[in-house]
Amino acid sequence: MHTVKEQAEKAKQASHILRKASSTAKNEFLRVLATELEQKLPLILSENQIDLDENPTITSAMRKRLLLSEQGLTSIIAGVREMLDFPDPVGSIVKDTVRPDGLRIKKVRAPIGVIACIFESRPNVIIDVAILCVKSGNAVIVRGGKEAAHSNTILLSCIETALKASGLPTESVQQLEDRRHEAVYELVAMEEYLDLVIPRGRKELIDAVSAHSRVPVMKHSRGLCHCYIDVDANPEKAVAIAVNAKTSNPATCNSIETILVHKDIADSVMPELLKQLFAKNVEVRGDEKTRAYSPLCKVATEDDWAEEYLDLVVSIKIVDSYADAIHHIDTYSSHLTDSIVTENKTTAQTFELDIDSASVLVNASNRLTDGGVFGLGGEIGISTCRIHMRGPMGLEDLTVTKYIVEGDGHIR
Amino acid sequence: MHTVKEQAEKAKQASHILRKASSTAKNEFLRVLATELEQKLPLILSENQIDLDENPTITSAMRKRLLLSEQGLTSIIAGVREMLDFPDPVGSIVKDTVRPDGLRIKKVRAPIGVIACIFESRPNVIIDVAILCVKSGNAVIVRGGKEAAHSNTILLSCIETALKASGLPTESVQQLEDRRHEAVYELVAMEEYLDLVIPRGRKELIDAVSAHSRVPVMKHSRGLCHCYIDVDANPEKAVAIAVNAKTSNPATCNSIETILVHKDIADSVMPELLKQLFAKNVEVRGDEKTRAYSPLCKVATEDDWAEEYLDLVVSIKIVDSYADAIHHIDTYSSHLTDSIVTENKTTAQTFELDIDSASVLVNASNRLTDGGVFGLGGEIGISTCRIHMRGPMGLEDLTVTKYIVEGDGHIR
Repeated sequence: MHTVKEQAEKAKQASHILRKASSTAKNEFLRVLATELEQKLPLILSENQIDLDENPTITSAMRKRLLLSEQGLTSIIAGVREMLDFPDPVGSIVKDTVRPDGLRIKKVRAPIGVIACIFESRPNVIIDVAILCVKSGNAVIVRGGKEAAHSNTILLSCIETALKASGLPTESVQQLEDRRHEAVYELVAMEEYLDLVIPRGRKELIDAVSAHSRVPVMKHSRGLCHCYIDVDANPEKAVAIAVNAKTSNPATCNSIETILVHKDIADSVMPELLKQLFAKNVEVRGDEKTRAYSPLCKVATEDDWAEEYLDLVVSIKIVDSYADAIHHIDTYSSHLTDSIVTENKTTAQTFELDIDSASVLVNASNRLTDGGVFGLGGEIGISTCRIHMRGPMGLEDLTVTKYIVEGDGHIR
Repeated sequence: MHTVKEQAEKAKQASHILRKASSTAKNEFLRVLATELEQKLPLILSENQIDLDENPTITSAMRKRLLLSEQGLTSIIAGVREMLDFPDPVGSIVKDTVRPDGLRIKKVRAPIGVIACIFESRPNVIIDVAILCVKSGNAVIVRGGKEAAHSNTILLSCIETALKASGLPTESVQQLEDRRHEAVYELVAMEEYLDLVIPRGRKELIDAVSAHSRVPVMKHSRGLCHCYIDVDANPEKAVAIAVNAKTSNPATCNSIETILVHKDIADSVMPELLKQLFAKNVEVRGDEKTRAYSPLCKVATEDDWAEEYLDLVVSIKIVDSYADAIHHIDTYSSHLTDSIVTENKTTAQTFELDIDSASVLVNASNRLTDGGVFGLGGEIGISTCRIHMRGPMGLEDLTVTKYIVEGDGHIR
């Protein structure tokens, strides 16, 4: 077994080569990886089954996240091939100016370097992370959950085969070999080798990683998201969006926890909204005005506005004005993604400016906040940090800029 | 006196207003500030004189940094007015795409939030920081060196007048009132109020701030910079660039510490290079081949390649090949700014890719790595971090992106 330090050193060395790797080699990696995953498909499914068998006590939600189906794998493989169509972000020019004295200043994209990605049960993450990091020229050390050990190991061996076949260093993507809990903390403290940490998972995981890290951590702290149904909303769209944003996958961070409804549209929205929510077995906790629409609504306490349910529970408040809605969101939002439903273009534009969240949506479900949906080539995580970038972190976001300055004997 | 926490809270509140401030108000701030600085010019000079008088024991280098001359102030005022011409970065669209299903995804710039800027003796920094932060919609808490207390206080009162006159919160720019050393550490740990820390100054200051910070720190760790004179260099340009990069202001981080000369051009470069360096009283420490050109050259030991002199001292090595030069830079550079002198376009392009530094220059002095020179509206610091951005951090770099998503009932 390699020590954490040995693996970090190897990652740094690999990053120096990967940084200059050609687009051709990186695309060859993607092509071979897709083929390899196809050929190993039955083996991957059987290794995944071992993980499922060896962890009979996990919750059904965790089990769902751990499971790799044939359909799921086929879609993962399609995702690997889609990455071929994305332009190589490395070397792309962000800005190109010539100063009055003839000095040319170019701002170009370069890889970040070495990234650590710490995640929980979902084994598909390892493929997302590998293709995003390699295509953007970054070396990566992954640490998946121990319940997915067999799945991650077989997927990693496919990645290794593809790296070898395309002439890229096999240490470009490594799994942390030291399985101790403390190994993660040792890794994220190695500022001489590591450039960025991306934790994905529960708040406890993210907090623990942040507390030990000596390098920048790109994270989303929580997913307390809102949908505000404005007085000028189209009631049908409003109900469809709010129900989708709550129910399509309540365990994800981009699901909403609170619906705010303008009082002057409540009569046109509330009955159908509640009907559809109850039909999907959603527990509704409402303020007094909300409860007037149905005896099935429970009481929302002050704590409810601040709670991330991550479950089929929603809080609803009927607000007196647009300003009240903004104030509520400002107070309780985790600023990951908040939406408005309105046909009033001025209100929409004001909302876009007023709401200081990573992703602000107009007439669209919060659940659409996703690297794949946004066309970013997938996502390595969602950031609510206030530097680098906010929102789903895709291919381009795994680069940093550098300046290239071209003169002809220019001095100062 | 306000506590650190009170000031941080006020900064956060101010940032919420500043975030939505109009370009008109922010430009009005700049106009009033310029006028105010002009009117208070004699008073600023006399307050600066008090600082100089009260600190008779500081080094001449520090004294030079502390001194505000009439000419210097006039140039600062001109800088404030120049900022008027820069477009407001807030709200500017970085990317705008429409997905196949009609969903519009915009990536737009928004302010970072609250920034702490910790700097040493140079009082002009407070003006740079104020105009960059206000124009980019960020609140800032500054902490200057105690030796510049009178200068900073009068400059801050001018800033306050300008904020008031333009209807912006006066807490947008605050000076940390608690003068204890520990107050800085308390401030940078306040992650609920603070979004970014920018320390400017000696390595000890930067390290201490980093060690205590709970929020991202944009910093340059060191300025160990190189100039490589390639076999295809124009000798005249090479000498001019290397001498300028060493001598024009050796105390700055973008000055070079090491010159690498290709062996096959050494005869055409070394005599004139050494002559001009000696004429400027530069102490030269060379490898054996360098010393063969002059008995005045001292011996360069292994330690010299790793030392940031920040003084009129330079180390010179004659290398056998381009690859040797790259290897030397890879080994010793702090990756702030490295340059090549060559007329060979292919070599230049390869160097731009090979050298992984924040700023890579071709046929131009390393000293040009500067926000003003680059046309960024000044700089709040130079970053060698590997996220957000690298190099001189200007107006645009004080923003972060957010996503604005516009649909028409889109769900997932």
